[in-house]
Amino acid sequence: MATGRFIVCDGNNGAGKSSVIADLREWLSAAGHEVMVTREPGGTPIGEKIREVVLSPETPELCDTTELLLFAAARAQHLQEKIIPAIEAGVIVICDRFTPATIAFQHYGRGLPLDLVQAINGIALNGFKPDLNIILDLDPILGMQRVASRGGKLDRMEMQKTEFLSRAREGFLRQAKEDPVSFTIVDASRSFDSVVKDVRSAAQALLSRLA
Amino acid sequence: MATGRFIVCDGNNGAGKSSVIADLREWLSAAGHEVMVTREPGGTPIGEKIREVVLSPETPELCDTTELLLFAAARAQHLQEKIIPAIEAGVIVICDRFTPATIAFQHYGRGLPLDLVQAINGIALNGFKPDLNIILDLDPILGMQRVASRGGKLDRMEMQKTEFLSRAREGFLRQAKEDPVSFTIVDASRSFDSVVKDVRSAAQALLSRLA
Repeated sequence: MATGRFIVCDGNNGAGKSSVIADLREWLSAAGHEVMVTREPGGTPIGEKIREVVLSPETPELCDTTELLLFAAARAQHLQEKIIPAIEAGVIVICDRFTPATIAFQHYGRGLPLDLVQAINGIALNGFKPDLNIILDLDPILGMQRVASRGGKLDRMEMQKTEFLSRAREGFLRQAKEDPVSFTIVDASRSFDSVVKDVRSAAQALLSRLA
Repeated sequence: MATGRFIVCDGNNGAGKSSVIADLREWLSAAGHEVMVTREPGGTPIGEKIREVVLSPETPELCDTTELLLFAAARAQHLQEKIIPAIEAGVIVICDRFTPATIAFQHYGRGLPLDLVQAINGIALNGFKPDLNIILDLDPILGMQRVASRGGKLDRMEMQKTEFLSRAREGFLRQAKEDPVSFTIVDASRSFDSVVKDVRSAAQALLSRLA
């Protein structure tokens, strides 16, 4: 029986995660794979309720440790209820944000101790790990401009200052340098065609490697 | 300047926490103390939203680790936003449930590893600790009968089986044995007058000891 794969797409807001994921889903489906797209925080009814709490612009007083624990709670539920069963059923799961974002935003961004963030991630993951983390890398000022040009409301995470987002960007890049086997950095400042070409290529390399 | 105190009232449902807390609040206020009553999970707007997720009878699929992380998230917020500022302002804070419940229900009840539960509690507490934990001890079958006689709806935690509640009771008692200085067990099978007499006496001992 086929074993699924777990591909994470992460990076600062505005880097084009949604469009890239939509393309990857279509491309993998066309190649005959069963694909499921999900997102963090959220992904399950409980996770979506947690997402409402953690991303609501009405909760500016949310403290850093609470935020970290809420992300972890949503992740534990997401893995056990949805991601792991899908992978065991042979599905390729694509997830919009995952552990790279927690390390980037909560440790590099907010300054929470790395060992604390890793300990809580470890509790939520319970030994599980993505096969591939695709990091869409973009200057956060460009990212914020793209988010603003969508005309939508900013959520609580998107209202962060540029300095915070720059630290988070650095955090994504460092994680990729420390684990080049499971991370791929894609320069998201280029044309959409160039970006998806690299993303498809990283996914193909994973599927060949693990075939 | 006066330093407040932190008194926790805990134990299985039906043991009379609410009535005992109401009496203790009144008695301490009458003695000239400023008193604040709060509860877990909840206690803050964010905590109350988390409480809705964790206690809703509509979320039976909540996994054990998620539940543990949600309780911890609510606790971290509760401490930083409400409990610690009150204590620093000289208030006696009485909290309906706290860490004893997490150890009793999540470790002794659900079987999550003690080191995991303690690690997550430790993250939420960040070095903080109640001055006094009053454990209202009652046979869980009597407790369930009392809850049922109220005629209210049972929440998700109250719908647990007797066997689970018996393990939790044992967990409350063991914690008290391991830390007799900050724990007091009160036999809640007796008359309300006898129970509140013991509770007031434990609170008085704390206030004298720390005066």
